[in-house]
Order: sequence, then C-alpha cells, then structure tokens
Amino acid sequence: MSNFLPQSILDLINEFSKLPGIGPKTASRLTFYMLNKSQNDIDSFGQAAINLKKNLKICHNCYSISQNDPCSICSDAHRDKTQIMVVEEPLDIVALEKTGFKGLYHVLGGVISPIDGIGPENLRIKQIIDKIEKDDCLKEIILATDPSLEGEATAMYLASQIEKMAKSAKRGLKVTRIARGLPVGGDLEYADEITLQRSLEGRKEY
Amino acid sequence: MSNFLPQSILDLINEFSKLPGIGPKTASRLTFYMLNKSQNDIDSFGQAAINLKKNLKICHNCYSISQNDPCSICSDAHRDKTQIMVVEEPLDIVALEKTGFKGLYHVLGGVISPIDGIGPENLRIKQIIDKIEKDDCLKEIILATDPSLEGEATAMYLASQIEKMAKSAKRGLKVTRIARGLPVGGDLEYADEITLQRSLEGRKEY
Repeated sequence: MSNFLPQSILDLINEFSKLPGIGPKTASRLTFYMLNKSQNDIDSFGQAAINLKKNLKICHNCYSISQNDPCSICSDAHRDKTQIMVVEEPLDIVALEKTGFKGLYHVLGGVISPIDGIGPENLRIKQIIDKIEKDDCLKEIILATDPSLEGEATAMYLASQIEKMAKSAKRGLKVTRIARGLPVGGDLEYADEITLQRSLEGRKEY
Repeated sequence: MSNFLPQSILDLINEFSKLPGIGPKTASRLTFYMLNKSQNDIDSFGQAAINLKKNLKICHNCYSISQNDPCSICSDAHRDKTQIMVVEEPLDIVALEKTGFKGLYHVLGGVISPIDGIGPENLRIKQIIDKIEKDDCLKEIILATDPSLEGEATAMYLASQIEKMAKSAKRGLKVTRIARGLPVGGDLEYADEITLQRSLEGRKEY
C-alpha cells in the first residue's frame, strides 16, 4: 500500500486482508468505512473480536463450540437421541439447525486430507465410534460432511468403520449419507456432470 | 442467527455484518475463521481496529487523513505545486498515487447529493476556491470526482465556481476533468451506451 497512509490505517488494512475472501482493495474499503464510524462503534467492533474466544468451551459430547459444557443441544431433553449427524465444523450445525433437524451432532473437526497431512487420527473419528459403541439408543448415523472430494472420502471411511463396529457388536444401525443432487432453485442446464449423475442415482418415485 | 451459538460468536457475527458488502453468511464465515486463530492474532486484529483513529489528524491543507499535519504529500517539497487534483474521499488518493501523479490534492469530503441532504456548503468547496484564490502558482485544477451522476454534477458545479472566480480575478487557470471512456482491458461489446458515448466524445488523434 501507499506509504503516505498513516500507520494505523495500514495496520487495519493489513489485518482485514488476512481474512479469507478479502483482498487488499476490499480491506481498504472496509478500513475507510470504519474511519467514518464513531470511536464507540469502532471499540465495540474491536472488543467483539478480542472477546470472541473468552468464555468459550468445547462441548465434551459433540465437540461443538459452546458457552456451556455440555452445549445447549446436547443438554436439551427434547432432542431425538436416536440420531447423530456427523459434520465437519461447528458452522455446519448453524446451517443444519435451520432445517428443523432434531437429533444430535458430532463435530469431526475437519476431513481426511492427506495433502494437508490430516489423517483419521487427527479427527474425532475414534470419539464418534466410541460414542456409538457405548450408546444403545442410537439408531441412525447421518454423515453430513461436505460433498467435496475429501468430504466424500471421509464419509466413506467413517461408514466402513461404523459398519465394521456394528457388525462385530451385532448392532442394527443405519448409516446414511445426505443426498447429493441439484440445489433447489438451481438450473439443470448449468449443473456439472457429477452433480447430475448423483441427482439421477438418487432419484425417487413419486 | 441460531440461538444455540455462544453470545461472543453472535456478537462478532453481528459486528462483521455491519460492514458494507458483508452479509450474515460471510459474517459467520469470517467469525468461525477467526475462532481457529490464536488469541494473539485475534488481539492484534481487534487492537488494530480500536487504534484506527488514535493519532490520526486531518491535514489542514488538503483535508486528507494523515499522521501529521500537514500531511506527507502537502509537506513534500518535490511535489508539483501548480496542480491540484480535487477528489471525493481520502481513499481516492490511494488509487491516484499509483498513477504517478505528482501534484497536490484537495479532499472534498463527498459529493453534492440533494437526496442525502448534501449541498455545496457541506463539502470543502469554499476551501478549495479560497485556496485557488490565494495561490498564484496554481495553473491547473483537475476535477477527479467519481464518474457518477453526483460526481459529474459536483465537478460541473466546481468548474463553474472556479471559472467565475478566475474570471473576476483575471487569472489564467485551466480546469480539467478526468477522461470518461472505456476502462483498459474492458470489452467494447459490453460497455454501456453512456460510457461509449463519452469514449467517442473524448477521442484523440494519433
């Protein structure tokens, strides 16, 4: 950036640029936008960032981020304890909660990705297997990792591990994978071939 | 947002959502991205925001934001004092400095916009007229407001005011407007008709 700008402006532009999807131009636009705000507004923004991780806990049951341990979902008596949805990140739960899903969650903490050096042992896979093993109420494990290459591979790996365990323990357990297909409101014409293929494979009778 | 999320996360999502161009989805993506950062990184982000306006001054000469008054451009002996570029906001100077322009600037602080209740008296128009009147070295005033409806109107208003003053003071003063035309790398086929029209009006001989 230009060297005539005051250091404090350069600093905030630099900090904004570190965020994902924010390039140097957006970063300076955001910074100059904040310059027009009152010091009060700016302080409340800065403090919200600084306080982000204060008082945050990891729920020992589902490994989601939470204010209490266990989290409000795990400690809710009205949730359906027969279903566990396995997700990659806590943010996925935010999206899934909007669907009205009433079961429990398990946060893996990522996906298997050999390129990034992440193997099954770096994820909370042992924990979910242990949880299923100990909990006789469980009837269905829904694998809701992303429909990406790594997400699919992780789901397949998990499914095989869970089925192996269920078989040796003689447990009747359903392992399901969320449907891949055309997004609602999408355009068939612009869909990629793999999505279309999955959409055909997953077709249902009326 | 979902009420199962901890308050500190909701707070930061809310703060990010206030920024221009950042909707609730991007705001939560940014917040969850920050959750994975160290407290050190988070603190340096928050502090950069809080410190943004500390030690900032407005240059009394060009009205740009600066660490010192006069700013580094106004106090630079190597700048060409015969040209003043009139811009809307300090951020415009960042872009213009990259062009290699070596004259001085004058920040208006916005554009004339009756809808938003901004008239000439709310901008630094009197200040630029006074500055030109007092400074005999000045040879050219370059009007570099945005090529928007309000920017064009402001430039026209300024041009008429400056010319009126120059005429009564019998001063030879050039008032120019930056060229409107096709952006470099752009596609003629997709250009709007007004841009094309300006591009034709502003054509030059080889």
